[in-house]
Amino acid sequence: MRDYYSKYSNEYSWLIKEEGWVKSLQGVRESQMALGNGFLGSRAILEELPYDSKPGTYIAGLYDDVGSQVAELVNLPNPFNFKITADGEKMGLVTMDVEEHKRSLNLRHGLLLRHSVFQDTRKRKYDYQSLRFISMHNKNLGVMQIVFTPLDDGATVSIETGIDTSIYNSGTVTEGRKKHFRVKELGQFKNEGYLVLETFSKSSTIILRSGFYYQTRGKKVIAKDNVFELKLRKNQTVVFTKIFYIDRVSDQKYLEKVKRASEKNFRKAFQAKFSQLISRHIRAWEDLWDVAEVSVWTAPEIEKNFRFNIYHMLICKPQDNGLSSVGAKALTGEGYRGHIFWDAEIFAFPFYLYTFPEAARDMLLYRYRRLDGARDIARAQCFKGAMFPWESAGLEGKEQTPDRAKDLDGKIIRIHTGEQEHHLTADVAYAFHHYYNATGDETFLRDYGYEVFFETARFWASRVEYNKRKKKYEIKHVIGPDEFHPDVNNNAFTNVMARWNLAIAYEMFCKAEKSFPLALKKLTQKIGLLAKEPAVWKKIAAHITIKVGKDKLIEQFDGFFKKRKVEITSWDENSIPIITEKLTPRDYAKTQLIKQGDVVIFLHLLSDAFSLKAKRKNYQYYLERTIHRSSLSVPTYAIMAADVGDRNKAYRFFNVALHTDLSNLHGNTSVGIHIASIGGTWQILINGFAGVRIEKGILSINPRLPGMWRKILFSLRWRGRLLRLEVKNNVVRVQVISPEKKKGKVKIKVFGVLHELSGNKTFDFKRRKGAEEKKTYYL
Amino acid sequence: MRDYYSKYSNEYSWLIKEEGWVKSLQGVRESQMALGNGFLGSRAILEELPYDSKPGTYIAGLYDDVGSQVAELVNLPNPFNFKITADGEKMGLVTMDVEEHKRSLNLRHGLLLRHSVFQDTRKRKYDYQSLRFISMHNKNLGVMQIVFTPLDDGATVSIETGIDTSIYNSGTVTEGRKKHFRVKELGQFKNEGYLVLETFSKSSTIILRSGFYYQTRGKKVIAKDNVFELKLRKNQTVVFTKIFYIDRVSDQKYLEKVKRASEKNFRKAFQAKFSQLISRHIRAWEDLWDVAEVSVWTAPEIEKNFRFNIYHMLICKPQDNGLSSVGAKALTGEGYRGHIFWDAEIFAFPFYLYTFPEAARDMLLYRYRRLDGARDIARAQCFKGAMFPWESAGLEGKEQTPDRAKDLDGKIIRIHTGEQEHHLTADVAYAFHHYYNATGDETFLRDYGYEVFFETARFWASRVEYNKRKKKYEIKHVIGPDEFHPDVNNNAFTNVMARWNLAIAYEMFCKAEKSFPLALKKLTQKIGLLAKEPAVWKKIAAHITIKVGKDKLIEQFDGFFKKRKVEITSWDENSIPIITEKLTPRDYAKTQLIKQGDVVIFLHLLSDAFSLKAKRKNYQYYLERTIHRSSLSVPTYAIMAADVGDRNKAYRFFNVALHTDLSNLHGNTSVGIHIASIGGTWQILINGFAGVRIEKGILSINPRLPGMWRKILFSLRWRGRLLRLEVKNNVVRVQVISPEKKKGKVKIKVFGVLHELSGNKTFDFKRRKGAEEKKTYYL
Repeated sequence: MRDYYSKYSNEYSWLIKEEGWVKSLQGVRESQMALGNGFLGSRAILEELPYDSKPGTYIAGLYDDVGSQVAELVNLPNPFNFKITADGEKMGLVTMDVEEHKRSLNLRHGLLLRHSVFQDTRKRKYDYQSLRFISMHNKNLGVMQIVFTPLDDGATVSIETGIDTSIYNSGTVTEGRKKHFRVKELGQFKNEGYLVLETFSKSSTIILRSGFYYQTRGKKVIAKDNVFELKLRKNQTVVFTKIFYIDRVSDQKYLEKVKRASEKNFRKAFQAKFSQLISRHIRAWEDLWDVAEVSVWTAPEIEKNFRFNIYHMLICKPQDNGLSSVGAKALTGEGYRGHIFWDAEIFAFPFYLYTFPEAARDMLLYRYRRLDGARDIARAQCFKGAMFPWESAGLEGKEQTPDRAKDLDGKIIRIHTGEQEHHLTADVAYAFHHYYNATGDETFLRDYGYEVFFETARFWASRVEYNKRKKKYEIKHVIGPDEFHPDVNNNAFTNVMARWNLAIAYEMFCKAEKSFPLALKKLTQKIGLLAKEPAVWKKIAAHITIKVGKDKLIEQFDGFFKKRKVEITSWDENSIPIITEKLTPRDYAKTQLIKQGDVVIFLHLLSDAFSLKAKRKNYQYYLERTIHRSSLSVPTYAIMAADVGDRNKAYRFFNVALHTDLSNLHGNTSVGIHIASIGGTWQILINGFAGVRIEKGILSINPRLPGMWRKILFSLRWRGRLLRLEVKNNVVRVQVISPEKKKGKVKIKVFGVLHELSGNKTFDFKRRKGAEEKKTYYL
Repeated sequence: MRDYYSKYSNEYSWLIKEEGWVKSLQGVRESQMALGNGFLGSRAILEELPYDSKPGTYIAGLYDDVGSQVAELVNLPNPFNFKITADGEKMGLVTMDVEEHKRSLNLRHGLLLRHSVFQDTRKRKYDYQSLRFISMHNKNLGVMQIVFTPLDDGATVSIETGIDTSIYNSGTVTEGRKKHFRVKELGQFKNEGYLVLETFSKSSTIILRSGFYYQTRGKKVIAKDNVFELKLRKNQTVVFTKIFYIDRVSDQKYLEKVKRASEKNFRKAFQAKFSQLISRHIRAWEDLWDVAEVSVWTAPEIEKNFRFNIYHMLICKPQDNGLSSVGAKALTGEGYRGHIFWDAEIFAFPFYLYTFPEAARDMLLYRYRRLDGARDIARAQCFKGAMFPWESAGLEGKEQTPDRAKDLDGKIIRIHTGEQEHHLTADVAYAFHHYYNATGDETFLRDYGYEVFFETARFWASRVEYNKRKKKYEIKHVIGPDEFHPDVNNNAFTNVMARWNLAIAYEMFCKAEKSFPLALKKLTQKIGLLAKEPAVWKKIAAHITIKVGKDKLIEQFDGFFKKRKVEITSWDENSIPIITEKLTPRDYAKTQLIKQGDVVIFLHLLSDAFSLKAKRKNYQYYLERTIHRSSLSVPTYAIMAADVGDRNKAYRFFNVALHTDLSNLHGNTSVGIHIASIGGTWQILINGFAGVRIEKGILSINPRLPGMWRKILFSLRWRGRLLRLEVKNNVVRVQVISPEKKKGKVKIKVFGVLHELSGNKTFDFKRRKGAEEKKTYYL
């Protein structure tokens, strides 16, 4: 039978495909091909739910902590529930013989397409096609179509649809699978039904509505029930259309209101034509890609895979004004229970900042709205200011890192990151500053930014210890990004970021004194900031220990250089070191082996503070010791490799990062995609290859494309403008698109030369020898 | 901590134990330790539902056929749902370290007891005990208690209870797991909740109610909700008591009435004391054992295991006037989808007939009420009368044998039993006659029995074909009990049973003419019986082919003797042949290997028609060819072994049959116990060893106990009396207990000598040499 949805599956460079079915990859595909719109996330289960499939339907920011050590992203009932049997035999990849099976994820339009041909025990064939999407036009809406045709014979077909509430959170070893919701109310009237759920902690109510109809022989039929039978003749095609609507009520007093609205909105969508629902959805996707699209000329496979990564950023793009942020696995699985780490601010954030700054703003608001929680965490440990939790989830901003876990082999693991991985607080401040830099949004600074800078600086000022002998401030007992070495003193990453945090807070205080004296006054009163504090921040910042050896080599923490070096002699096909020595994670702490970049990360984050020489030395030194056991590692090294001119490695690492989830490189894509790696991959291309940086507040472009790429095309939002960029190694074309109200010129440095560009024009720049300007560096 | 329920777990000969936990045996234990009361059946899941556990809650006779090839016993929501976590870590055998774990099934009182000691990741221990039962006093009621104590530290305990609707039927390969019900209505008020379910086919509505309370520090507390938290101190014990109530509404018009009654009855039980609920339940169990108990002196292990078998007969004892019968797996699992086979009438029925004849009556009513269905089946195949379905389920009496299935390896198997295994119709008639023989219930005969005899005889009269050359009636294209040989002609079992069926119908017709001429007249009008038909039955019966070779050797079917003999040269530890030759089931058909007794079964069923010589010859001949691939096989051979004096084999086979489910001998106890083997085991002891038979309508006892047994004690109901028997090899003591209204003497033959015993006295009989009387045999 023809492909019913062929018009959605013919653009090679926008399709991720599954050909045939491999049981062991089921979970991986469910994550890879997930759908979403930032409010809802949905794993790409097969409708028939073969054994071990893992349905996942998540609302951004919806957590529950009853019956688990810490809060978990709630797995909701499965609205894509659809079971169809012919004469009692169920359509499915396990239940039937499979003549043909393929699925495609259409990245451009956010559609999941399927075409399977089944054969029953009587050797009769059935054509089964489906299309589904989570609407990008209406955040509460999802749509599925199933196109079913018995090919060899008539059949009595039995259908079961409606919303499946038999859904669990997978849980950890010590908790087992568990539910986080219960049904409070339900109703079914013919082909429409609804459910009202409540999370166990009663903090949220969720309303689900769904309805369906089918069409056959040109007629639209409203079934009498969501479980029903149909008699089909040979070659008679039926198209089932299912529409569902999911909304969340965080405040009980709005329950009735939201319920009524959900009914109205659902009904409206349910009565609309399918063609209308899908075309609105597609238009919304095209608006997203208009800004987010990246073209890589002469590398179509890379271009497609890169778009897969962007796709995943788009389906979890925040949109709720700080109710939620982006978890380590976004909304594609339950890995890390849906918690939010520094992955959000350091790895995912830049993509949003430069394409959808309003989403980046929402991510910052997520932290801002939990400032009281962060203050509580600081206070509980006798620190001042605000200390953000290592793992964040839910509305209160509490620390959600479990303090211990049990391995599959029964071994108990103590988890120290919640107690010691303090750099996150500076990472959050960094993102606030990054946002200000890229948007110039003074109002945001006034309303939210200053408070975060001051409170985080206060935390660091109370966190440091003064070493009288050295006349330096130290930060002891921390874990840096390299988690192989817990409980270390003066981790360079932590110290550098804390130093930066203190310095920027001082700088911002001075700025606020000038720009917003009244707002500053109110703020100092609100948070009880003493007049002397900013000066103390400045002083501490100037005296935080960072140990630098010869040739600008930075010691990762006190005593790192004295650890045993483990010689790395073999690498796998992805340039990831293979450790032949028998070492357990406990042994790693005694060696110089590191889990991921640590020094290298701040060389990237604070790029313009470090000389090429310092970067080269540290990149080379730590690369030889890094075994990339975190998906965050390879992107950082790729960017730094591009930065220091190690073009081979940059390109190789880029490809590894690009495939993290496409090729399940860490073996755990089944529990969700790796948002840090995905965001990091975008940074490799934009910051690494296109050479986009902020240098002292000015956007700078200095490309160093991989040899086989002719050019890359992408867009960036910068200070209220949209820049359309066409980047070759020696030629950069910039089109500036300014909105009406944005007058004046924008400063951009291209190939090291500063330009002032006026709005709505296109400029071409060529690389000139010797144009590089002199700079001063911190190191 | 002490065993809270020690008083229920101290009688060795009534306890089946699980010590420690073996994951691979989880399903087996769930079936073995199942609870039930004939109306409800419940698999013995661990409350925490470790991965791969299979909750099963079944109502006898509740089937649904939507989305499956044939009807399936509906798996209902799990009322034993109870999850408890301490500081987020869940109590459970997989989730925690297990310091100690044991369960006991108390056979005497129908209680499942558990005692586990868990240790969390902080090395803190928790004592966890539970007791549960399905009330034998009130068929709708179930009760569970959990006794929980943190042993080393205080803890915040979170509890989730209520009824879990996330329950599926396991389904076959071609159907996958599936639901058969949906929730129509639900409500929760504080600690009480209810659900109204409907099967997908809408044929039944089910009402579930549940409530719980807990006691700690001497106080009874009503929780505000079924998901709640508790703060416990070290050594503070909490006892949770959960009560649930399940009822079924087959007719929608009674829904509101049943709903109200369920509320009232549930409330009453919920407000009763736990001690009262359990003591009523225990009393009801003691009443059952008063009749069902069997003691085997000097063999305590065998006695206990035998009681395990009886226990399983008791928990599925029919009680609903023919709404349901006993499925092949009773209510302990979903094997064969809960269908009813000849296992019911031939293997399970005798136990009920001789202990609870009202239950046996209900089983017959099950068939009687589906006589119209059986007429439809006969008519559809152009036969006359009534032909009962090979697999039966539900209310209509349709054939429920799937006609094909898919193996785990994807191979499609055609199933011919539904089309060809016709002997079941005679087996049903046999049970009707057996019932009449043992009870003397003339009213039943009049109201139900005659109709079944006549309609089944009519079926056989239309089923046979006259062979003019041989001047014999033949039955072609059948499958006998030995299913290795499908589509055979003149299967001896089928022919002998058909012959018997025709003959008994004629006999019964003559009897009815005398006893109930009016009723007979009405009946002949109702079923359109022609005057000449009974004589035709008699004629056909006299001329049905049964091929007998030399020494009274009966040929299993036409051409069996010409099949290739496969020499059996090795046996496993249970005396089950090991086939060394590479043979597939398809090859078996070409050999003399048989799946189970075939000839041997009718030698047992129609015992007094066959001489010892005929029995010996055929037993020996077919034993050498039987590989016991059905759990029905070994019991039959054991009885026949006892009959022909092969005492070693009789004892050995008895032990194998006894352990069928206790030792998971067929490897599939996880999908439910084997009711045929269980009922067969009872028959080995009673019919085989105690030598209880009916000879020409008279109860005969002629024991042949295994050498190491001193005596056995048991009770039998016989023609309105209760006989208490104490049986030694050469001495039999009989106590006759007659109800008031039963006047007159009862005839019993002991050691071959006929006695007439008057009521309410005890008699001792001794074996006398040469007392055996002369008999005439059919063969």
